Amino acid sequence: DSKLKVFSLNSNPELAEEIAENIGTELGKCTVTRFSDGEIQINIDESIRGCDVYVVQSTCAPVNQHIMELLIMIDALKRASASTINIVMPYYGYARQDRKARAREPITAKLVANLLETAGASRVIMLDLHAPQIQGFFDMPIDHLVGVPILSDYFEEKNFDDVVIVSPDHGGVTRARKMADRLKAPIAIIDKRRPRPNVAEVMNIVGNIEGKTAIMIDDIIDTAGTITLAANALVENGAKDVYACCTHPVLSGPAIERIDNSNIKELVVTNTIPLGEDKTSEKITQLSVAPLISEAIIRVHERQSVSILFD
Amino acid sequence: DSKLKVFSLNSNPELAEEIAENIGTELGKCTVTRFSDGEIQINIDESIRGCDVYVVQSTCAPVNQHIMELLIMIDALKRASASTINIVMPYYGYARQDRKARAREPITAKLVANLLETAGASRVIMLDLHAPQIQGFFDMPIDHLVGVPILSDYFEEKNFDDVVIVSPDHGGVTRARKMADRLKAPIAIIDKRRPRPNVAEVMNIVGNIEGKTAIMIDDIIDTAGTITLAANALVENGAKDVYACCTHPVLSGPAIERIDNSNIKELVVTNTIPLGEDKTSEKITQLSVAPLISEAIIRVHERQSVSILFD
Ligand SMILES: Nc1ncnc2c1ncn2[C@@H]1O[C@H](COP(=O)(O)O)[C@@H](O)[C@H]1O
Ligand SMILES: Nc1ncnc2c1ncn2[C@@H]1O[C@H](COP(=O)(O)O)[C@@H](O)[C@H]1O
Repeated sequence: DSKLKVFSLNSNPELAEEIAENIGTELGKCTVTRFSDGEIQINIDESIRGCDVYVVQSTCAPVNQHIMELLIMIDALKRASASTINIVMPYYGYARQDRKARAREPITAKLVANLLETAGASRVIMLDLHAPQIQGFFDMPIDHLVGVPILSDYFEEKNFDDVVIVSPDHGGVTRARKMADRLKAPIAIIDKRRPRPNVAEVMNIVGNIEGKTAIMIDDIIDTAGTITLAANALVENGAKDVYACCTHPVLSGPAIERIDNSNIKELVVTNTIPLGEDKTSEKITQLSVAPLISEAIIRVHERQSVSILFD
Repeated sequence: DSKLKVFSLNSNPELAEEIAENIGTELGKCTVTRFSDGEIQINIDESIRGCDVYVVQSTCAPVNQHIMELLIMIDALKRASASTINIVMPYYGYARQDRKARAREPITAKLVANLLETAGASRVIMLDLHAPQIQGFFDMPIDHLVGVPILSDYFEEKNFDDVVIVSPDHGGVTRARKMADRLKAPIAIIDKRRPRPNVAEVMNIVGNIEGKTAIMIDDIIDTAGTITLAANALVENGAKDVYACCTHPVLSGPAIERIDNSNIKELVVTNTIPLGEDKTSEKITQLSVAPLISEAIIRVHERQSVSILFD
């Protein structure tokens, strides 16, 4: 049986450390630095010949840097005779560029899949892809884990009286449905529409939220524009309290300010993307996906089914 | 005959503009920006269906950003039905990571070649690769132009009396030889060696430099450590004046300070890498490679031999 080794790159070292601990191993030794001109320098400092290697890297910001780090690491592992190169990518950058929405656009989510294959990856473990179709961009095994149980368990412990799970758009209804099933709650949907061109969007709410504790769920919260406007609409329409949660806290640009100034009482996120110093807010609670990912790694390594972790 | 279009990305817009002008065309319309989270957004704003497209991009700093811009642009061009996608890469980043110098290192120069192929490039036009072997990393046509004639012509006009061309290391002797042939001058070589471990390197000079105007030539000047120490050695050993030149002015870290404080009278470089605001020095002269590259593009497009531009 070949040896399991976990390596961390620079995107998410705390999560990688936690995963290694859960698995009962130490992080593999490698040096990932920069030359004076900014080029990435990687050296793997222990033999990995014949090993099953797991590389933990989210392709969050700085996304291009993190992608290149990962590709160069895969190249080094391949040339150092790793038996399998398994990519643990808690957050998949460029996932929103998954189709040509306009003429002459790239499909960068597919490009990234191709780059990972070319570099030499054998498998990718991912969490809450923006569109599950991205799995089909790969011709290698993918394990697609979901964050809903982690987020649901957190809210379950709160024992709210009268809960409604809210999807902030039509694309997220399946996710909201899953959470609602776990919390035995009804769902509601924010139905955005623009009455006429150049007129502000109107947020209709489909479903009953009056007097209820509303929990919005999304996969990614980026600039937090939609989610904070939706929170206003929920309060205006009689929701008692508004909570929000998501798997991937991208939180770029004005996100933190918007959340701090919003009607959202608490925002619950996971650590697929670390919250740097510039992304702190008293409203944010961060839950760890390390137990989920560690179990997936152990199951993959022991050739057991991972599908038990899919819902 | 299919139409020629030149596009510029963000590394070297002035050079691209100059190339388009030389060719007698306008730069293709495209928008290359960033989303709020730092992901690259590319949209090609004119039809390129069936065209021979030339994309000008040096993979200089920020190198990972510039590589990803290029790969995403190639993906967009491919999906927009370009006939051929020709990459004009005046500076090839990661060229120095062209072999495993130690165990478990990546060969990033080869990885980048693979990534370009995967994205969909049809051809690459490059200038003074750090090692000509990098041509063999590609399975597509490569045109490898050289900067020596541009640099030589500049010095020829100076009409120095008694010139010697100096290679700052053994790896650069072929390049120095070419320049010496053009200027009808002899060559000398800086022969670095470390007498014992942990003892400073000694710079021996092989060849006669006494009383002569020494012109050092290299492909890349990065932190300028070697070249400024070599300049000292040349002066100490009786050179009258010391000039330096290179194709690719990487000039990272302490480079500008070192050059300003050195014995080098003038440093002549090309514009394969733009000199930003932080890379200015009164000692630096920058020559344009636009005429060379424009001629190469025209010859490629008209199916003429480009080898005339190789020495
Ligand atoms: N990093 C990004 N930030 C914001 N929008 C993006 C990003 N990447 C892609 N998009 C755009 O978001 C849209 C897809 O989002 P969605 O409709 O939520 O799947 C597409 O039109 C993309 O052009
Ligand atoms: N960007 C870089 N800056 C400095 N050194 C580098 C860079 N990339 C690679 N190297 C190292 O430079 C050496 C190759 O340089 P050379 O001997 O001049 O071909 C290798 O040992 C590389 O590890």
